[in-house]
Amino acid sequence: METAPIIPAPKRGYSVARVTRHWYIACHASALRAKPRAVTILDTPLVLFRDDEGRPTALLDRCAHRNVPLSMGSVEGGQLVCGYHGWAFDREGTCQRVPALCGVQTGKGRRVAHFHTRESQGYVWVYMDPDHEPEVEPYVIPHLDEPGFSTVRYDAEIPATLHATCENILDVPHTAFLHRGLFRGVKRNEITAVVRREADRVSAEFLGEPRPTGLIGNLLAPQGGTVTHFDRFILPSIAQVEYGLGDRHRVVATSALTPVSDFVTRLFAVVSFKTIVPAFILRLVATPIAMRVLKQDVVMLNAQTEAVRRFDGEQFVSTDVDLLGGHIWRLLKQAERGDKPGDPVEQRVQLLA
Amino acid sequence: METAPIIPAPKRGYSVARVTRHWYIACHASALRAKPRAVTILDTPLVLFRDDEGRPTALLDRCAHRNVPLSMGSVEGGQLVCGYHGWAFDREGTCQRVPALCGVQTGKGRRVAHFHTRESQGYVWVYMDPDHEPEVEPYVIPHLDEPGFSTVRYDAEIPATLHATCENILDVPHTAFLHRGLFRGVKRNEITAVVRREADRVSAEFLGEPRPTGLIGNLLAPQGGTVTHFDRFILPSIAQVEYGLGDRHRVVATSALTPVSDFVTRLFAVVSFKTIVPAFILRLVATPIAMRVLKQDVVMLNAQTEAVRRFDGEQFVSTDVDLLGGHIWRLLKQAERGDKPGDPVEQRVQLLA
Amino acid sequence: METAPIIPAPKRGYSVARVTRHWYIACHASALRAKPRAVTILDTPLVLFRDDEGRPTALLDRCAHRNVPLSMGSVEGGQLVCGYHGWAFDREGTCQRVPALCGVQTGKGRRVAHFHTRESQGYVWVYMDPDHEPEVEPYVIPHLDEPGFSTVRYDAEIPATLHATCENILDVPHTAFLHRGLFRGVKRNEITAVVRREADRVSAEFLGEPRPTGLIGNLLAPQGGTVTHFDRFILPSIAQVEYGLGDRHRVVATSALTPVSDFVTRLFAVVSFKTIVPAFILRLVATPIAMRVLKQDVVMLNAQTEAVRRFDGEQFVSTDVDLLGGHIWRLLKQAERGDKPGDPVEQRVQLLA
Repeated sequence: METAPIIPAPKRGYSVARVTRHWYIACHASALRAKPRAVTILDTPLVLFRDDEGRPTALLDRCAHRNVPLSMGSVEGGQLVCGYHGWAFDREGTCQRVPALCGVQTGKGRRVAHFHTRESQGYVWVYMDPDHEPEVEPYVIPHLDEPGFSTVRYDAEIPATLHATCENILDVPHTAFLHRGLFRGVKRNEITAVVRREADRVSAEFLGEPRPTGLIGNLLAPQGGTVTHFDRFILPSIAQVEYGLGDRHRVVATSALTPVSDFVTRLFAVVSFKTIVPAFILRLVATPIAMRVLKQDVVMLNAQTEAVRRFDGEQFVSTDVDLLGGHIWRLLKQAERGDKPGDPVEQRVQLLA
Repeated sequence: METAPIIPAPKRGYSVARVTRHWYIACHASALRAKPRAVTILDTPLVLFRDDEGRPTALLDRCAHRNVPLSMGSVEGGQLVCGYHGWAFDREGTCQRVPALCGVQTGKGRRVAHFHTRESQGYVWVYMDPDHEPEVEPYVIPHLDEPGFSTVRYDAEIPATLHATCENILDVPHTAFLHRGLFRGVKRNEITAVVRREADRVSAEFLGEPRPTGLIGNLLAPQGGTVTHFDRFILPSIAQVEYGLGDRHRVVATSALTPVSDFVTRLFAVVSFKTIVPAFILRLVATPIAMRVLKQDVVMLNAQTEAVRRFDGEQFVSTDVDLLGGHIWRLLKQAERGDKPGDPVEQRVQLLA
Repeated sequence: METAPIIPAPKRGYSVARVTRHWYIACHASALRAKPRAVTILDTPLVLFRDDEGRPTALLDRCAHRNVPLSMGSVEGGQLVCGYHGWAFDREGTCQRVPALCGVQTGKGRRVAHFHTRESQGYVWVYMDPDHEPEVEPYVIPHLDEPGFSTVRYDAEIPATLHATCENILDVPHTAFLHRGLFRGVKRNEITAVVRREADRVSAEFLGEPRPTGLIGNLLAPQGGTVTHFDRFILPSIAQVEYGLGDRHRVVATSALTPVSDFVTRLFAVVSFKTIVPAFILRLVATPIAMRVLKQDVVMLNAQTEAVRRFDGEQFVSTDVDLLGGHIWRLLKQAERGDKPGDPVEQRVQLLA
């Protein structure tokens, strides 16, 4: 039978790009132990396990023999052994043993695709171009374990495309509407956004943003101060919000997103913050607010996903204040096709926030 | 991305026509209040709301911006405000406000399709050709609130095509079989049906039908009398049974059908009756019988729908006593294509009922 | 509308063949009584009933009139009467009565496909080429009710293709792995398999197989003895394991498989055995082991099915010790196409079992 591509093509008519030559978080490093672990990235079932030196290893989760998921098997002597007939695969995906076979154990075609891995900053990352050497290294999350910073991590499953999830995380206008009273006050201010697109990223810097007046604002800066605020997207799937208030408060929320399938995105968030408010108080107050914001976003993104699927495709209209969505889509498509990046771009937009 | 048609094409191989230039009941008028209401007609999600003058309004249930269902939003100042970014749409579907935008608020493409509505006889009707002026008015249900008549209304969801539902409601032969003992007695009589097809309707008049002998018959006419009986289909989706017994009994059951999707039809039934039996007694006795008949029909229509879908299409064989099904299909297809109606037709058929 | 083939084509990219000119078990003879019974074979819904002489009869489970399943109807006077309008079909599938119709009752097109049946060895078999005379007779299960043999029957539904199910039943290598400790001991022995393919079957004879050491082995032959062991596939769907130990023990497990749909196979198993161990003890000990083996196989076959469907097709790699799978596939495809069988083949393979 004909060989299908390992990474299937995305659904057409949707903002779904499949950037394979890059790294995505598969799971927390602590979650990968003795047993093999099934993970799906880019609609592709992978099995992760640790070899005899403890190195994380990723193979396509389908035995070369009868296509049973290898994640149903076990790790023996650093090899992944299928639970059906006992074929044993090494960390490169080559079958080293067929138990019932007399004589030579290896043979042409007796292999499964393998994917490069890295263990970094407490996560296992997978390079999604099978059997190819990585051209880059995984993104390094800033301020993680940096002195003076506290860190909170959380994960979530978002029922939306990677693109819709990024746009949501980095979108300012919806915070004043969907999250009314949580993030921002009722009063709107005209501010300036400076959008800068570079080879592998796009950011928006917000100028003239007043001290926040909502609940979080009162908490962070009872005495006021100048606000610095950047929203950033970095290929293939980092969505980052950086927020400073005077000299004493700084928070960087980095969301490393893993495209599970066209319409499901896994969020691995790291929030690092430096503030005069004791960390335990901040956690106590900010966590329920953050969870409520996340829940409101998940409800809305789920409704968006269902609607675009029901109409079998997107029909989006944008305005100038949709600052980053279009640029993110352009970067994703360029990276998917392997195009050379375009020239840097800088734009200034006025918006009410 | 390419623009898909707002009303999607029906599944092929089935008796599914999509007559868009006509009116369908969306909901009871009393069910449309302050909150927007989601309704699906012809597989098309609509959002209904009342503007600031209380007029029912219908738009496509998909925000022009990021495609979130507008039915998740709220009505403010007579406009429908999306729950995600706060885009506000007027009763014509034009976006009048983008909260985060500085300067001009309206813009090309910032609109959603709108559908004409009427509030009539306690129902909200929608004209399913978006952005077009209606060429006709909604059907007027006879005897509703007419002196001397009592009325019962009920709704149901039928798991079948509009065509199969119409045929079932107006089909005499199955009543003697599926509803044995409820409608008709065991004895069969040869009667004459006169079928007349006109521009927008087809009817069957039954001549020589004896006084009914089943349970309902005994109830209606203990003393006998001449029976008059008409079954009618009127475009796009009215199925009507008119039944008289002597001078003193008359019942007109009008089913206004709304094609929710190819295989789901919503039934809004109005039964108006004039009889010497006190209305409360009739309701008491007839309601459980009617509900049992409805339940038997729903079971059968559901089985029919599952079977035709399982075989991926219909393979129907008809005989002369399938009086109206073929004519209804012809009228529906002509109306779907916008053809000129054919010449009137009259046929006489003998059947055992 | 166009006529679709009665037996739909199988899904491509999978080892699914549809051999229609052959017999499959529909149900136990005792399960077919007064009421019609719905059975699906080769993705084709059938209705079985007994005519007025008690003969099993099989028709396509779709009324010619409005496609309602005939299995919702009833048997009256040896005819199958549809529950919707009362059309009555005889054992050849010809409609003999349309209750509402005056005059001639039969008419062109008023029929449903019929399938030949046999009642044999306690089962009802159906020949899956509609309206054609059978060219062969159903398989005769050996040793059923033969003096000296005891018999156990059991049924199961397997979530896998017919081919994957056959291969699993007749596959030796997986027993040492998936069923470790139940069938065979830990020690592996090199044995010889002689594979013989003939016109309608393929078998493997195992030479040099030692007395089994696992639990079943100890049970069957505490005193040792020579082992005879054959695995056989017989068209269209018989998977048979024959096992002997010395003169005194013999077990023949015949699995007659019915392809319900592409990925569901119904198993009708007959295990006939002759042994010095009292039958009731053997049943007591062997039944829970057999059930555990079956359960392990079902879990694995289900995982295989889900994986091949997730990847939308099979990507199998085989070795010499996959003795029968390739031959079975060849026989099935030849039979599906009606090809002349190839010349007999004999191969010898060494394997560790």
